[in-house]
Amino acid sequence: MPLDTAVTAGLLVIGDEILSGRTKDKNIGTIADHLTAIGIALREVRVVADVEEAIVEAVNALRHRYTYVFTTGGIGPTHDDITADAIAKAFEVSIDVDPRAVAIMKPAYEKRGIELNGARLRMARIPAGADLVVNEVSVAPGFRIGHVIVMAGVPSIMESMLKSATASLETGCKVLSASIVVSHAEGEIAELFAAHQASWPNVVMGSYPAFTDGQYATDLVLRSTDAEALSSARNTLAEQLAGRGFKWHLLEQHAS
Amino acid sequence: MPLDTAVTAGLLVIGDEILSGRTKDKNIGTIADHLTAIGIALREVRVVADVEEAIVEAVNALRHRYTYVFTTGGIGPTHDDITADAIAKAFEVSIDVDPRAVAIMKPAYEKRGIELNGARLRMARIPAGADLVVNEVSVAPGFRIGHVIVMAGVPSIMESMLKSATASLETGCKVLSASIVVSHAEGEIAELFAAHQASWPNVVMGSYPAFTDGQYATDLVLRSTDAEALSSARNTLAEQLAGRGFKWHLLEQHAS
Repeated sequence: MPLDTAVTAGLLVIGDEILSGRTKDKNIGTIADHLTAIGIALREVRVVADVEEAIVEAVNALRHRYTYVFTTGGIGPTHDDITADAIAKAFEVSIDVDPRAVAIMKPAYEKRGIELNGARLRMARIPAGADLVVNEVSVAPGFRIGHVIVMAGVPSIMESMLKSATASLETGCKVLSASIVVSHAEGEIAELFAAHQASWPNVVMGSYPAFTDGQYATDLVLRSTDAEALSSARNTLAEQLAGRGFKWHLLEQHAS
Repeated sequence: MPLDTAVTAGLLVIGDEILSGRTKDKNIGTIADHLTAIGIALREVRVVADVEEAIVEAVNALRHRYTYVFTTGGIGPTHDDITADAIAKAFEVSIDVDPRAVAIMKPAYEKRGIELNGARLRMARIPAGADLVVNEVSVAPGFRIGHVIVMAGVPSIMESMLKSATASLETGCKVLSASIVVSHAEGEIAELFAAHQASWPNVVMGSYPAFTDGQYATDLVLRSTDAEALSSARNTLAEQLAGRGFKWHLLEQHAS
């Protein structure tokens, strides 16, 4: 159940290689962690193939629903990299080699002894009206158009772009979380936990099977934008668990 | 770019914990690998929160587009497990404790010394008209309604259900793939590779940065349902790379 956090996001992962299983995505988890930490609630993720109409449809669906959309993948130099053109189409703007991107890439490539050939110039194609998103790893930039941030698929490059894009993002309330790990199966604490959820409407509670100290256990996760409510909900839950003879231990409160 | 493979699938991952970053999804990669291996083309993945309307909307969107929809997550015993009810709502059918599920769970739980209490009976709630999907790990079954297969989120349990569900699936042409790893950056082989793609319309070619023998390299992946076309496309690509003085090595042909 989502908390009311004002600033939301959708994520669009683009690439045949994720859908075929060839590449195991790591960006969803990284982006989810980052957005949670800065106070943006990731509400939906979609993974689509390197197909223009699939990208256009997904980016348009997501950008009309959420404050921000982040995309990963499809902005390299080869023929299967079609994300920038698809984004231009979604926004109904033109796209061309951008002198600002060339100005960044040319000297950096010269320094590294890399030729800025026609294929690599594809990476300087930026939709009209977009701002560049700096990439400190391989230099060729991502971009931001409206509230859509377009990043590379290679994790180290994506992370550099995500860091660069973050400064310009509006953020909302941070969702804080607290965990209580119970040394019992979910089915044994479910009734007590459901009753506790019912008493705390502004704290969202989820239960996840865990494996701790070599034993099956349950991780009870409480999430809220209200630190005081979160602490009270956690403490009263701990008291109730103790009262019923359940074994548990607290984990530190953290963003997530 | 997707190949025309006749049998397609969408995947819906359900869970607040994936969107908050708390849990890093492993099921997308497992399911992608499995579907590719058996000849079902995974076309789209969505991740949504534990929110009934989000689940209903996504499952209805996906099931009208693809041959099959697989879902993971939200079928445990706690209050935040709402997937079964949401699926019943999407199909506009009733849902109740299913005697077939109870008949499986009761003896297995007795044997393991687990009480089949009210919370655990939630896991026997199955939408009307669904078939059970056997779970050899924790016993409580998944289900299949129409062409939608509903599975647990815990990877080991999901894998057991995926295995059980597979026998009843229609499958299409297997997509075969072959890789050539080139010891050069993507930007250097992009032009040759694009021209090669243009000559082979029934072989889909993608380029992925790789790191091999301590050096940056590029993995050129060719995919086709036509084994002969795939071999020819791979061999002629290898010849062209050699002719241009690029260093490369072949990887074995495999399903992917």
